[in-house]
Amino acid sequence: MSKLIDIPAAAEFLKNCRDVHILIHMNPDGDCIGSGYSLQAVLKLLGKRAKVVCMDPIPERFQFLLPEEQEEEFPAGNIISVDCADESRFGTFRETYAGKVELCIDHHISNDGYAHQAYVEPDASSACEVLYKIYRELGVTFNEQIAKCLYTGIATDTGCFKFSCTGADTHLIVSEIMREFPQIRYDLINRKMFDVKTPSRIRAEMLMLSQMEYHLDGKCTMIWETKAICKENHINQKDMEGLTSLPLQPDGVEVGITLREQDDNWYRISLRSTDQVNVSEICAKFGGGGHVRAAGCQMQGTADEIRTTLLNAVAKALA
Amino acid sequence: MSKLIDIPAAAEFLKNCRDVHILIHMNPDGDCIGSGYSLQAVLKLLGKRAKVVCMDPIPERFQFLLPEEQEEEFPAGNIISVDCADESRFGTFRETYAGKVELCIDHHISNDGYAHQAYVEPDASSACEVLYKIYRELGVTFNEQIAKCLYTGIATDTGCFKFSCTGADTHLIVSEIMREFPQIRYDLINRKMFDVKTPSRIRAEMLMLSQMEYHLDGKCTMIWETKAICKENHINQKDMEGLTSLPLQPDGVEVGITLREQDDNWYRISLRSTDQVNVSEICAKFGGGGHVRAAGCQMQGTADEIRTTLLNAVAKALA
Repeated sequence: MSKLIDIPAAAEFLKNCRDVHILIHMNPDGDCIGSGYSLQAVLKLLGKRAKVVCMDPIPERFQFLLPEEQEEEFPAGNIISVDCADESRFGTFRETYAGKVELCIDHHISNDGYAHQAYVEPDASSACEVLYKIYRELGVTFNEQIAKCLYTGIATDTGCFKFSCTGADTHLIVSEIMREFPQIRYDLINRKMFDVKTPSRIRAEMLMLSQMEYHLDGKCTMIWETKAICKENHINQKDMEGLTSLPLQPDGVEVGITLREQDDNWYRISLRSTDQVNVSEICAKFGGGGHVRAAGCQMQGTADEIRTTLLNAVAKALA
Repeated sequence: MSKLIDIPAAAEFLKNCRDVHILIHMNPDGDCIGSGYSLQAVLKLLGKRAKVVCMDPIPERFQFLLPEEQEEEFPAGNIISVDCADESRFGTFRETYAGKVELCIDHHISNDGYAHQAYVEPDASSACEVLYKIYRELGVTFNEQIAKCLYTGIATDTGCFKFSCTGADTHLIVSEIMREFPQIRYDLINRKMFDVKTPSRIRAEMLMLSQMEYHLDGKCTMIWETKAICKENHINQKDMEGLTSLPLQPDGVEVGITLREQDDNWYRISLRSTDQVNVSEICAKFGGGGHVRAAGCQMQGTADEIRTTLLNAVAKALA
C-alpha cells in the first residue's frame, strides 16, 4: 500500500524531483491531460525536465493544452502518476512503469495504493482540483497554459460543474483561476468540450437515443456501441466516445449504462448513477472502479450474458 | 429614464418597502423565478408581505423553488421588477404595472430604463447574481429556499456555468452558497434543469436536429418549431421549449437561430452566438434585445420572408 502523504509533503516531493515522467491514463480525458500538462508546466517553472507519458495519443480537441515546444526524450529520474486509480490504467505502459511510481496524485476513491507514496482526495471533483492545491502550496505563479489545463480538467470531470462531485472548493478554485486570467475564453473551451459536434457525432447521438434500452421499470437504461451498429450506420466508432451521459436523459433513470464493444466479445462498460446507486461498488464486483456516481469496468461475453449480469447487479443495488 | 442607483441604495429600498409586488417576466425562466422567489423570501425575513407576479404559470420543474404556504393576495404598496429589460416583458400584466415599477433589478444590457429607479449590472451572469450582492449588503441570513432559488437562477442563466456571462464572481457566489448549504443536492437540481427529458422531449430534439438548416457556409443554423411540425410528429409544442442551444451544436456555427411559431404568422425568435457576433444588436433592429451572445425578438411574416431577413442581418454582422 502507498504511504499516504499530505499536501505539504506532496509539494516537497515536487520541489525535489528531477527528470520526471508524468504518467496519465489510457484513453486520456480532460482531467488527466489537464493534470499531466499542468504538472509538466509547473515542474518546468521550477527548472526541471518533465514529460507526460501516455500509451494513447492526445485527442485533437485537447491539443490546445499542450506546450508549444517539442517534447524532449529522457530517461525517468522520478515517476509520478496523476488521475490513475490503479496500474491497469497505464495500459500497455504498465510493463515499463509497474511498481515504479513514486508519487500518485489522484481523486479516485478506488485508488488501490500501487504507488510508493500517494496523495488522494476522494472528495475532490478532479485530479486538477487536487493539483491546484499542491501548486498553491508550492507558491508557483501560474501562466495561461496552466490555467487552461486546470480549468479544462475541472470542467470536464464535473460535466461543467453539473455532477455531484462539484463542491464549494471546486467553484472557489475556478473563481480564483478566472480572476487571475479573465482574458481566457472559458466559454470557448466549454463549447469545444461540451457542445461542438460533427455531423456524424450528431447522427451517432440520435442513433443511440433512438436505440436506447429501458430496463427495470425505466430505472436502468443501456446503450450499445457495437461495431455492427457503427458499420451499418456509417458511423466512426470515435464518434461514439463519451456518450455516457445519454442514458441518464430519460426522467426516472437511476443507472445509465454505456457498453462499448472492443475485440473478442470484450466490452468496455460505463455506469452512471443519478441518485441512489453507488456504481463504483457495482463495477468493483467486475474488477473495475471509479466514483460513486460514475464508474467503469470491462466484461467479456455475449450481449445477452452481459445484459443479464449487469441488470442483476443493478437490481440488487436498487433493492 | 431610470435613476441609476447602487447596491447600498437598492438594499435601502428593500429595507423600507412594504406590501411588495415582485414582477417577473412572461414565459418565466429559472433566473426570473429564482430572483422573484428569493426576493419574496428575503422580504419575508425582513417582516414584510411580498408576492411574485407573473402573467404565466410557473412551470412544473421550478415548483420546488416556491414557498410552501399559500400566497396571499394584497394590493401593491411598492412594485419591484426583477430580470425584466423592458415593460413588454410583463406581457398582459403591462396594463396594470406600466409606469409604476419603482425599482428594477436586472442584468440586461438592453434595459430601457422604464423603472423609476434601477440597479442594473450588465456584466452579471444573471439577475440572481445581482440580487445575491444586494442580499449580502442587507445582511440577511439565507435559508435553504433562498439558496436553491439563487443557485437555480445562476445555473440556468449560465447554461450550468458554460456561457461567456459566467465570471469569477459567479463561481465565487456559488462557492459561498454551497459552503453554507452543503446538504442541498445541487446535482439533482442540475439534472432536473439540464438533463432530464421526457421521451417526447427526446423525440423533439432528434427531430429538430435532423431538420436543422445550415446557411452562410455553415456559420448560421436554424431550427423551426412550427405548429405543423409538432402536429405531424405528435409532439407537444411545450416539448420544444428551450431548444435554443441545439443550433449551436455543429462545429463552425457562429449564430444559431430558433424560430418558434406563434399565432398569425408571428414567430418568437432566439439568437445565440458562439464567438464573433453581437446578437443583441441584431435583435434590437427588430425591436428585441438581450445579451451579446443570447438575445431574442419577435417577427411577423412567412417563413421565407423571416429567413431572408434574418440571414441578411446575420451576414452583415459576420462581414
